[in-house]
Amino acid sequence: MVRGVTVKNEQLTKQVYQTIKGLYDYGVHEVVISPGSRSTPLAMACEVHPQMTTYIHPDERSAAFFALGLIKATKKPVAVICTSGTAASNYMPAVSEAYISRMPLVVMTSDRPHELRNVGAPQAINQVRMFTNFVNYEVDFPVADDFQSSHDFVDAVLLQASRYFSGPESGPVHFNMPFREPLIPDLSATEYLKVEPKSQVTYQKMVNIEPLRQFIKRGRGMIVVGDCQNEDLSQLLLFAAIHHLPVFADPLSHLRHQDSPYILSTGDTLFKVYQNVEPGYIIRVGKPVVSKAMNRFLAAVSAPQILVQNSLKPDTFPVVPDMHLEMTANDCFRQLAEESPVLSPGWFEFFAHLNAVVTNVIQQHVHTVNDEGTIFARLAGQLAADEVLFLGNSMPIRDCDTFFVGGLAKPYCNRGANGIDGVVSTAMGMAVHKKVTLVIGDISFFHDMNGLIMKKLEGLDIRIIVMNNNGGGIFSYLPQKKEELLFERLYGTPLDLDFEHTAKLYGFNYQRYETYDNIQLPKDGAHIIEILTNRQDNVIAHQELTEKVKDAVHAELSFNYAAE
Amino acid sequence: MVRGVTVKNEQLTKQVYQTIKGLYDYGVHEVVISPGSRSTPLAMACEVHPQMTTYIHPDERSAAFFALGLIKATKKPVAVICTSGTAASNYMPAVSEAYISRMPLVVMTSDRPHELRNVGAPQAINQVRMFTNFVNYEVDFPVADDFQSSHDFVDAVLLQASRYFSGPESGPVHFNMPFREPLIPDLSATEYLKVEPKSQVTYQKMVNIEPLRQFIKRGRGMIVVGDCQNEDLSQLLLFAAIHHLPVFADPLSHLRHQDSPYILSTGDTLFKVYQNVEPGYIIRVGKPVVSKAMNRFLAAVSAPQILVQNSLKPDTFPVVPDMHLEMTANDCFRQLAEESPVLSPGWFEFFAHLNAVVTNVIQQHVHTVNDEGTIFARLAGQLAADEVLFLGNSMPIRDCDTFFVGGLAKPYCNRGANGIDGVVSTAMGMAVHKKVTLVIGDISFFHDMNGLIMKKLEGLDIRIIVMNNNGGGIFSYLPQKKEELLFERLYGTPLDLDFEHTAKLYGFNYQRYETYDNIQLPKDGAHIIEILTNRQDNVIAHQELTEKVKDAVHAELSFNYAAE
Repeated sequence: MVRGVTVKNEQLTKQVYQTIKGLYDYGVHEVVISPGSRSTPLAMACEVHPQMTTYIHPDERSAAFFALGLIKATKKPVAVICTSGTAASNYMPAVSEAYISRMPLVVMTSDRPHELRNVGAPQAINQVRMFTNFVNYEVDFPVADDFQSSHDFVDAVLLQASRYFSGPESGPVHFNMPFREPLIPDLSATEYLKVEPKSQVTYQKMVNIEPLRQFIKRGRGMIVVGDCQNEDLSQLLLFAAIHHLPVFADPLSHLRHQDSPYILSTGDTLFKVYQNVEPGYIIRVGKPVVSKAMNRFLAAVSAPQILVQNSLKPDTFPVVPDMHLEMTANDCFRQLAEESPVLSPGWFEFFAHLNAVVTNVIQQHVHTVNDEGTIFARLAGQLAADEVLFLGNSMPIRDCDTFFVGGLAKPYCNRGANGIDGVVSTAMGMAVHKKVTLVIGDISFFHDMNGLIMKKLEGLDIRIIVMNNNGGGIFSYLPQKKEELLFERLYGTPLDLDFEHTAKLYGFNYQRYETYDNIQLPKDGAHIIEILTNRQDNVIAHQELTEKVKDAVHAELSFNYAAE
Repeated sequence: MVRGVTVKNEQLTKQVYQTIKGLYDYGVHEVVISPGSRSTPLAMACEVHPQMTTYIHPDERSAAFFALGLIKATKKPVAVICTSGTAASNYMPAVSEAYISRMPLVVMTSDRPHELRNVGAPQAINQVRMFTNFVNYEVDFPVADDFQSSHDFVDAVLLQASRYFSGPESGPVHFNMPFREPLIPDLSATEYLKVEPKSQVTYQKMVNIEPLRQFIKRGRGMIVVGDCQNEDLSQLLLFAAIHHLPVFADPLSHLRHQDSPYILSTGDTLFKVYQNVEPGYIIRVGKPVVSKAMNRFLAAVSAPQILVQNSLKPDTFPVVPDMHLEMTANDCFRQLAEESPVLSPGWFEFFAHLNAVVTNVIQQHVHTVNDEGTIFARLAGQLAADEVLFLGNSMPIRDCDTFFVGGLAKPYCNRGANGIDGVVSTAMGMAVHKKVTLVIGDISFFHDMNGLIMKKLEGLDIRIIVMNNNGGGIFSYLPQKKEELLFERLYGTPLDLDFEHTAKLYGFNYQRYETYDNIQLPKDGAHIIEILTNRQDNVIAHQELTEKVKDAVHAELSFNYAAE
């Protein structure tokens, strides 16, 4: 048995360098490392790799969400590395988010060797298959040895894992890697780390879209587009234009800023007050939309629904579609291009008109400072097309859906599992590569304040707008609100935190607004902008908007469409 | 299908109230609830239960560690309740710690009903068996219905789960509970929540200790006691006194403050410099000790070793014992009471004398302010016997092992998986029931600052001493330290945080010490006491102590025992 650091650990060096080299060659160019001892071989291999970019993050929970931000910004797989024990457990929130949102997070947990597992040795938990519910692929590595077959095995693992690094089945993978002491690899053996990029395997799926043609012949089509993970949707827009179809675009579809009259942005607001529509067919594209009202409509409507989502595991929510086409939207709509359009006179115009009516009401409402959501209208003109608007879950994503009218920046959100956790870190990760403005509620901000450390460690710029209504704002919209005695304790949860102290702790510039009529975003730098709002006022303002929209839409309908 | 809150959800009310009533009756008297919508039935049932104590915690990761603190303080099972989605994932760190340290944490994750799982519905991840590596028992509940058999099933689950709430096989259990809307139970139906305490099942294990008698006949015995989870050890002390045996007591054995000359507290320091001991036999009691030096000795020594640990899954680390007795220490040593002692003249006195020599060196060293660890000597006289000294992992637990000489307070630590995470929260949880002083390093403190929110929400008093050496102190003791180019980036990780801002954020009193010669603990209130230290000085001071101990012990040995 070898002991002591003067003995170079050659087998370990070869195995670990082979792994890190392989990951780089397959496209993993960034790694987020959390400090620890057992992870020394992996951390050092990444540091001495000639081209790997590394980030150090002292909180594993935030670190893994930071990695999700890097993935969102670069559309490439990113690895996280931690030591053994509960460090690994802290990855669980981001891994479960990554699984649902199909993001290629390469989770590398260092482990004790087999003889130190399950015997009461320190920092040893059962890491084998610990993420099994939330990864596409998982391997418990062998301890490094001299067998060629072990070397070949690592190559096989890398090939297999890389299949989940991109494309429709992308998602997290888990390498659990046991290391024996001595843990320091041979730092001079960089010949094992030569960069030799591997070409990505791609598959062309042949999907028969014939049955779809039958549906299209019915006319009065409607297209509903959710998060498409940055897919190119140009053929969809062409199809909509030729067939004169309304395209209801979720904020995460990234369609709203495109220059096409067929894209309608007020679906949520409109369907809240009016669902009496009978389309001939509905094509759903991508992941389910954020809008509860739209999903309620889809769940109830009798029209046949076709889901276009390039995945073996389609998101059938809110209702199982009549047909699932496992292909990209562009592949689908390109094949439909030569189809002669079935025009239904007045059909698109009906929606376009209502969209204009609703847009008009919203644009009048945006001056209501009691409505938190209107912050998005105030931001719309201040964000450029190449900027990221990152959204907290709960209210910000919903308010963005309503109020980000005419905004050019692309909205992003952790919309896999919709957690309020890890939002700050994901935005910080994106901020490495993009100019980011984050809008987030106070509870969600509190949950991941540790993520702010990356401002200090990496000198990141980001503008963080905290909508501080001192508690869980979204709950005020739920029936639980009526149970007044329990509500404030169980749901309101006021934290009474002054985030100026948080800003000072992490070296952010800080501004507080009690009203935001004339909010001006600072151009550069790291800023926490706290906006004090009121949960009760906000609910009332939201209800008022809905009433105003209802009145306007119903007035319009009785005037123009009474005869229909 | 029922919809809307005016319809009371009777089936759900019955199922949830039956569950919460049963948990209370089986001994779960405290619950930590994290806000969410899907968890409404469980949260409200706990609130309307006549005797259940509830705590609200907005960060699930910290909430579950807070629950571990409640368990440590009360020795009773405690439940945690959260909503669906990544909220549940945030429990993973505390659940894995609870599993290794055998703490009865009842993890209750609310879930979407089956029709909303795996279809892309919001806040839905695969929660079924998500903690499977780290729980003793797990059940995915059915959606509530009217069948008597479903009602009986819940009773069966409660009975089975309760088997893990206390005793040698205690540990975490997981209830995953899907709820359909409407989520509000009938708040007036409190007749289902009547308190009817259940008696605990206990089993008497009959273990044949005959073979142990053979070992004892060899004489020159040694007893090594690790964490015994508050077990009564009076019979062990009696046995040691009759047989004149040295008892090397880990800080978590809670033996050190007992009034017995056979208890030796300097094992770690002594065995660092001297391992040339040949006992006739060694009895190990409880979990493995913290001391690396002692574990190295145990792994190398040729004497037969007997492990007394009342568990089916004994901790065999650092070496598989020759015999495992699955029984409590008291049951074991009571049976040995009538055994006639095999006295080995000079054997105990040898260790007692070295213990005195080492203690003397340590007591001279404690005035070295460059040595972080000496804080424990300075605290020893200021903490009463009924107080808790909670220890961070990495350096504080090790330094306490060395320097908490003559202290009366009982040391506690998350020593299952030895994570640096969740330490603040576990200490805060203990602070509900005990007077707590926490000593923690800056990285570990940073990791769980969110846990400090419970000071604000529950008005807790606690004294938190942050040993701020601006980075990961323990790594300076590892061989990695020699790789200077990479060391500070990968291991040192200075965060440059001024924790005065943290204190202000959460409403703690704050003091900063650059030297701590005359540190005086405040009597009451909530305090963050930051002590600025230096990693490099600290390493040197630790090395100096070891040298001084080596010199003193070797001088003593060559003088007194040269002839042996």
